[in-house]
Amino acid sequence: MSGNISGQPIASRDLGPGLPAMFDRYKNRFEQELSRSVRLPEGTDPYTLIRYHLGWADQRGVTARSAISQGKAMRPTLCLFACEALEQDPDRALPAAAALELIHNFSLIHDDIQDQDVERRHQPTVWSIWGVPKALVAGDAMRSVGDVCLLNTSRYGVPPQTILKISNILTSSYLEMIQGQCLDLGFESSTEITSADYLQMIAFKTGALIRSSMEIGALLATEDPAAFQAFSTFGSCVGRAFQIRDDYLGIWGDTSLTGKSAGNDIRRRKKSFPIVYAFERASGKNREDLLRIYIQEDIDDDDVGRVLAILDDVGARDESESLTEASAEQALEAIASVSLPAWARTEAEGLVDFLARRQY
Amino acid sequence: MSGNISGQPIASRDLGPGLPAMFDRYKNRFEQELSRSVRLPEGTDPYTLIRYHLGWADQRGVTARSAISQGKAMRPTLCLFACEALEQDPDRALPAAAALELIHNFSLIHDDIQDQDVERRHQPTVWSIWGVPKALVAGDAMRSVGDVCLLNTSRYGVPPQTILKISNILTSSYLEMIQGQCLDLGFESSTEITSADYLQMIAFKTGALIRSSMEIGALLATEDPAAFQAFSTFGSCVGRAFQIRDDYLGIWGDTSLTGKSAGNDIRRRKKSFPIVYAFERASGKNREDLLRIYIQEDIDDDDVGRVLAILDDVGARDESESLTEASAEQALEAIASVSLPAWARTEAEGLVDFLARRQY
Repeated sequence: MSGNISGQPIASRDLGPGLPAMFDRYKNRFEQELSRSVRLPEGTDPYTLIRYHLGWADQRGVTARSAISQGKAMRPTLCLFACEALEQDPDRALPAAAALELIHNFSLIHDDIQDQDVERRHQPTVWSIWGVPKALVAGDAMRSVGDVCLLNTSRYGVPPQTILKISNILTSSYLEMIQGQCLDLGFESSTEITSADYLQMIAFKTGALIRSSMEIGALLATEDPAAFQAFSTFGSCVGRAFQIRDDYLGIWGDTSLTGKSAGNDIRRRKKSFPIVYAFERASGKNREDLLRIYIQEDIDDDDVGRVLAILDDVGARDESESLTEASAEQALEAIASVSLPAWARTEAEGLVDFLARRQY
Repeated sequence: MSGNISGQPIASRDLGPGLPAMFDRYKNRFEQELSRSVRLPEGTDPYTLIRYHLGWADQRGVTARSAISQGKAMRPTLCLFACEALEQDPDRALPAAAALELIHNFSLIHDDIQDQDVERRHQPTVWSIWGVPKALVAGDAMRSVGDVCLLNTSRYGVPPQTILKISNILTSSYLEMIQGQCLDLGFESSTEITSADYLQMIAFKTGALIRSSMEIGALLATEDPAAFQAFSTFGSCVGRAFQIRDDYLGIWGDTSLTGKSAGNDIRRRKKSFPIVYAFERASGKNREDLLRIYIQEDIDDDDVGRVLAILDDVGARDESESLTEASAEQALEAIASVSLPAWARTEAEGLVDFLARRQY
């Protein structure tokens, strides 16, 4: 499928950089923290729904022997990495990492309701199984369970003042995330969005929580405001690189690697970066066709092909790639002046390489 | 209308006890705190929706000269009262009071989505104007704005440790509230609920946040665990009295005072206390009719009349009233041994009298 639409034969498919080692290193400890602090009574709503969404149980609430379907736990990993890179025991960031993951996942449950998405990570979404009312409540509960997790930070001897600061960072970044969601909802019906609008929107919607993951990890490691600021900027840039790469893969990604159907984001009329860029740049017949296609109820295969051709014409693919590269570079510049052990610098480079150049 | 269905002529209508003075006393200070700490950018989603729900603006975002339609702000009032009754300056409880009100209102926005209610406080509900996706996000944002409010408690010299405790109380009671909502959703499709099940459900759904309002007020005033426990129990009992009275008014209330249509809760097939009690007690023809009516798609006027007759037969009205009275008594007993100034004891009695015997 991907071979047909992207024009690349399957044989030459590029697997891209693999998941950096830090993801594996923190995975077990993080999952233990999550299951230790998230004491979810089995067989009771809303916890069955939460356990299902986290990949711990199937729809009937039966505990999975191995996790059914989980995300990469990117935010926890970034948080733990920031803490360890600044030479603190990352364990003290475990409760915050758990809170970050739960807040992220709560937002996914609500996002799926908003977008009426019926599938996530190859599984039916919570609302599509249990209906909107229960999914809504399950999301709300997951959010609160995240708050409970964060409070466990005090077990690691972190002063209450710092925990309140973390809580403040989390809440503020979450409010930015919401503002981003609202901007995004507004974009759906507009064809006048500029690249700058779009970058502002994703800085809120995706960037804020990724940035705060880094900030929280740094705050738990050091009182040095320069290091905190450096990791904050690192997080913002990494967030942008991550999102634009996501947008790229949503159009040109290898479907067998991304798990999404080819041209998925075009068919869903998602105003991702390449599309916004095309609307901004296209003229004449290209512009006419874009406008015509994006007001239709349904976008068929021919339309997808036409949009892909327009994206090629305006250079949206190259632009997406160079924007990701620039963000990746800025990310590494941001932490260049922070004193880090050699292993941490190498890992930061590997992380940026993965997020900006991954194929899935 | 009410005269017809409840059988009481309008002329004899009982206005019941008025809103206790404490509601007025705290109103201004509390609203100032809310508008000071909730700095909502005008004209931006999701804040337009939040301002609308709080009664600060109309649908177009135009600021209301006087509040359009607000609740009683019961939870903030209880919180401030508990603090002042224990001889502390209630101002230090203002940020927590604001947080309580926002959390309560966030839950209302989400409740209205769940229940598909199109009207609240005589105004169209948020989702009915802006649709589910935006209402969902507005609720999420309001919750976070509540978290931001709470953090302002530090301005009053309250130690971080206490703020974390409050945060913990809020989160835990909110999780109970959700568990209550889930139980309630489960009740909809069941005819086997006992009075005990029902009381457990409302202890979670309504009681938890009312209880924690009192607990937080007490915690901000004193370190005495006995006083804290007394106000906690006071809150639980007041919550039960309040809810059962609400259930009573939902069936037998004067529609011109409650603002709800007559027999509203019957028509909506709400499993409120009198109905649960009737299902538990009714036998023979009464039971048959109840079961028949409650599996119908629509409940018409005749059905409402029949249900009212069954409620009379099983004594559901008296049972509701005596349960409310008993809860009111227990509430006052709970704080009997706490040393309170005379004015506070009198006000506590007035509060209980109002919540248990109000007509609206």
